[in-house]
Amino acid sequence: MTLRTSIATVCLSGTLSDKLRAAAEAGFDGVEVFEPDLVASPSSPEEIAALAHRLGLTLDLYQPFRDAEGVTEDLFVDVLRRARAKFELMGRLGIDTMLVCSNAGTATIDDDEVSADQLRRLGDLAAGHGVRLAYEALAWGRHVDDYRRAWRIVELADHPAVGTCIDSFHILSRGHDPAAIEQIPGDKIFFLQLADAPALTMDVLSWSRHHRLFPGEGSFDLGTFLGHVLRAGYQGPLSLEVFNDTFRQTDVLRTAQQAKRSLTWLEDQVARRAVDVRRPDRPDVLPDTGQPTSIDFVEVKAEDAGPVDVLLGQLGFTFRGRHRSKPVRLWTQGKARVVCNEQQARDWAPTLSAVGFEVADPAASARRAVALEAPSVFRRSLAGEMDLSAFSAPDGTEIFLSPAATTDPPWAQEFEDGEEDARLPLLTGVDHVNLAQPWQRFDEAVLFYSSVLALQSDSSQEVAAPNGLVRSHVVRSHDCGVRLALNVAPLAFDAAGFPQHVAFSTSDVLAVARRARERGLRPLPIPDNYYDDLLARFALPAAAVAEMAELGVMYDRDATGEFTHFYTETLGGVFFEVVQRVDYQGYGAANASVRLAAQHRRSRRLAD
Amino acid sequence: MTLRTSIATVCLSGTLSDKLRAAAEAGFDGVEVFEPDLVASPSSPEEIAALAHRLGLTLDLYQPFRDAEGVTEDLFVDVLRRARAKFELMGRLGIDTMLVCSNAGTATIDDDEVSADQLRRLGDLAAGHGVRLAYEALAWGRHVDDYRRAWRIVELADHPAVGTCIDSFHILSRGHDPAAIEQIPGDKIFFLQLADAPALTMDVLSWSRHHRLFPGEGSFDLGTFLGHVLRAGYQGPLSLEVFNDTFRQTDVLRTAQQAKRSLTWLEDQVARRAVDVRRPDRPDVLPDTGQPTSIDFVEVKAEDAGPVDVLLGQLGFTFRGRHRSKPVRLWTQGKARVVCNEQQARDWAPTLSAVGFEVADPAASARRAVALEAPSVFRRSLAGEMDLSAFSAPDGTEIFLSPAATTDPPWAQEFEDGEEDARLPLLTGVDHVNLAQPWQRFDEAVLFYSSVLALQSDSSQEVAAPNGLVRSHVVRSHDCGVRLALNVAPLAFDAAGFPQHVAFSTSDVLAVARRARERGLRPLPIPDNYYDDLLARFALPAAAVAEMAELGVMYDRDATGEFTHFYTETLGGVFFEVVQRVDYQGYGAANASVRLAAQHRRSRRLAD
Repeated sequence: MTLRTSIATVCLSGTLSDKLRAAAEAGFDGVEVFEPDLVASPSSPEEIAALAHRLGLTLDLYQPFRDAEGVTEDLFVDVLRRARAKFELMGRLGIDTMLVCSNAGTATIDDDEVSADQLRRLGDLAAGHGVRLAYEALAWGRHVDDYRRAWRIVELADHPAVGTCIDSFHILSRGHDPAAIEQIPGDKIFFLQLADAPALTMDVLSWSRHHRLFPGEGSFDLGTFLGHVLRAGYQGPLSLEVFNDTFRQTDVLRTAQQAKRSLTWLEDQVARRAVDVRRPDRPDVLPDTGQPTSIDFVEVKAEDAGPVDVLLGQLGFTFRGRHRSKPVRLWTQGKARVVCNEQQARDWAPTLSAVGFEVADPAASARRAVALEAPSVFRRSLAGEMDLSAFSAPDGTEIFLSPAATTDPPWAQEFEDGEEDARLPLLTGVDHVNLAQPWQRFDEAVLFYSSVLALQSDSSQEVAAPNGLVRSHVVRSHDCGVRLALNVAPLAFDAAGFPQHVAFSTSDVLAVARRARERGLRPLPIPDNYYDDLLARFALPAAAVAEMAELGVMYDRDATGEFTHFYTETLGGVFFEVVQRVDYQGYGAANASVRLAAQHRRSRRLAD
Repeated sequence: MTLRTSIATVCLSGTLSDKLRAAAEAGFDGVEVFEPDLVASPSSPEEIAALAHRLGLTLDLYQPFRDAEGVTEDLFVDVLRRARAKFELMGRLGIDTMLVCSNAGTATIDDDEVSADQLRRLGDLAAGHGVRLAYEALAWGRHVDDYRRAWRIVELADHPAVGTCIDSFHILSRGHDPAAIEQIPGDKIFFLQLADAPALTMDVLSWSRHHRLFPGEGSFDLGTFLGHVLRAGYQGPLSLEVFNDTFRQTDVLRTAQQAKRSLTWLEDQVARRAVDVRRPDRPDVLPDTGQPTSIDFVEVKAEDAGPVDVLLGQLGFTFRGRHRSKPVRLWTQGKARVVCNEQQARDWAPTLSAVGFEVADPAASARRAVALEAPSVFRRSLAGEMDLSAFSAPDGTEIFLSPAATTDPPWAQEFEDGEEDARLPLLTGVDHVNLAQPWQRFDEAVLFYSSVLALQSDSSQEVAAPNGLVRSHVVRSHDCGVRLALNVAPLAFDAAGFPQHVAFSTSDVLAVARRARERGLRPLPIPDNYYDDLLARFALPAAAVAEMAELGVMYDRDATGEFTHFYTETLGGVFFEVVQRVDYQGYGAANASVRLAAQHRRSRRLAD
């Protein structure tokens, strides 16, 4: 089976011509023409058709045609008049399928026979123009708001030009079971529209109009959904229809590429469920790479990484040497590895610039990234002799793919004149990495990290900072060997001013904090009021809390475990955290507000 | 009766000290201390108490204390332990009232007697520390989610240290009738929290945490609500508790001033309902000015307003002369008046800088604005000899208050060497003015225009532009003599790049368009596709549509009437519209997307 890909023009920003060009450049086979985009365009229908032809795009659907059925006969006369004008227009565009939504406005007759009769007569008119009608149940249709009822009406209409349109949002937002899609003959599903969405409890119309997402960015189970549609025998395009306030205003080509990535990811999800949607030009589904096992290294780039060296020494890292050909230094402690990179770093304050992931088969993981059209990073300063594949994430972080190693990674041998690694390191590895996301890139980043690295999209939380709410969304591997927290800062933050951080794991955070203090580290100062509150909230021994207070260590507890951690001061745009987890699943969100307030005061003091 | 004003620290951005300073500077009498603000503060409770004292602020409430009742006895032991720690803390702060929320987390016992018994025992402990408990029903409380039930439990508890807290959000968001508040003895209402909110259909917890607004900015009827509370005999402070994603990140003093304005407006609303809430320092409620009757003039400021002069001439305006002492020119047509101001305008592209409003009693309106702490505009270039009061709106627009005039306004006499006004003007006045709002200022602007000018807050709409959704909110006078559309542009717009406009009214838009065309005006080009769609949507005569297409005129129809209009090209940051209404209530939102797309193409072409 060969499935084509398509995208509704409403998903993209710009003029209709901009949208067509971006869809073609991102590799889509076709587009749905959203009527308001055509109405606002100075190009004639014939010019649009010619542009699409030149770009190699088919025009797959004209949409939407509203308020067509369930109306009184005198209103239906006007429906036919409107439809005729649109069918003629579709002839000029060369589009043969029209989306007909269930009536959300003018319907007064709640009767399947009436709706079917009116669709049948509309079908007669459509057939005369070579047009097919794809009838869809809107989630907020006045009478018809369930795809099963829309299909019943199509069955009753029993007209070759009348079929149904299946839209994942309208079905999954209502919690309707998509399994019954398999009972619809595939050739009567005239069109398929796909959209994901975040889990929100709000009116379905606003949810649909503002918050739809591309597959893989939200919480719908689209793999299962699409499986039902394909088992029904649907052979039309996989088409995206995503109304989203952000995508409407962001770079059109970037959004189109993100959209294409989402379909590739979705096809892969379905292929793993043993439904064959392979395309001739993509004989294999995505390489099944498994998930990265752990974080190989993090890289801090700075014109002068000296202060980072000092901080790492205080945290107990061992200096492993300088790279033999570049101004790059390596620090390790257990499996926690930090690369300090001063190459091509003029005017850079310390910045978290790259994260390496240990994967079972770096070549397969790289092929997966390429298949998902992740942008490759070519010139690399880090590994030199050892050629690690690298890709650029939407937030600008460079993602490296390294072979899994039990001891030192192979690339560590390129560093010279350092010391021996400590025998019994207090830090054991990287617990999680927090990456700041520009608001325009957040959804794209969730899809990027979860698809390219095969991670799962997990929980979201909001944390109050003194200057706004920070949203934090976790993507991670099943066994938590890799955890990334993607943070969106409030708009009022200076985009560049929101620091990123690396959390190192330990089994004795107090020992790490005490040693660091002895070596001169000043942890982020935590107010006494925090410790008073800690005593009130948890029945902890006063002496234990006093020790935490002395060392700037924070504490949280959830249903299953405990979390003890501390933060360093921020250097440029990066800081470090040391965490000790005992059967604890979260990230200390309860303490993050206090940390953000402390950082706010520090940054202001430095700015004053 | 003397009511004090208070504000919860969670309404404001910054550190706890920042918040106290801003509350004091804005003129509040006290604050509610939101616990996380204290926990994140490096100042000790004693220092906070001393700062508040020095600033002349009382600390009115400590909040919130959660999950206190409806629990098993073994959990309640821990509730008492937690509470004791907080009562001691309140002693250090000098706060005597604690907010106790209905249990939304740990409650397992749905029994008023149990909750009452536990509150009574908590009350015993509180009384020993000189603390009173204000028990509040959260809208999402597990068992107790209605203020009437919370009051029943307080009655059952029957303890002098146990009263209730009334919060407008928790009551009005659930649609509960607030009238029963009058049955609660005023001295058992220990605290009153006020918040407005927009009409949203979403889960009440998210609505509460992100979207609360200050009174007058949303859609709750807080005047009626507060009337009930005052008739119950409540004598505590009017306190604002507004969780809002925007206010959390905007300038703290500005937000505090906006908050104070909202309470002044609300007190006035209640006073008009004959409940006396006058304060000794404000013997009069706001002057009852009535609403402005019409727009007196609009001012366009530019280094070179020449192109505006040309455009006004094409639209049929009469040049009425130059100001006798300033580089300012006046154009009029009927009651439509445009002032072109080149004073202190170096490097200014044409900008809509001021709007004059005709009011019955300018002195009273100015007193009203001062009472609402609207910032005065002092140095004025416009009127010179005639001294019009002027105030600066949150969006930077200057608001002038002019005496109502049947013919030329008195200040027009300061313009010399112009022509006579036309006898039978085609344009008759200003239909509406569209003002662009930065996203941070939108709610503040709704409150500012509706309170200072005594306008009513009306409908909101969203319109798709090629680069995002534009939100448009109307404030207007009852008789529509004054209409302002407040527009919030998508973030991706360059803030300065979103043009504002003035819509002039006419009873013959085609004649205006034709005359303008003859005088060389090029209207904003509207695509042919728009007119094809117009023919499909409405059964209009083809010849009429052809004439509209020739003149760039657009058309809309609603249930009651028709709207015909056209737009000029944009000059700098301003353009004009000419509208003909026939029993039509809207603003042509159906056409705004086409207009925005045309402007987008024009601006891009100019930028290329």
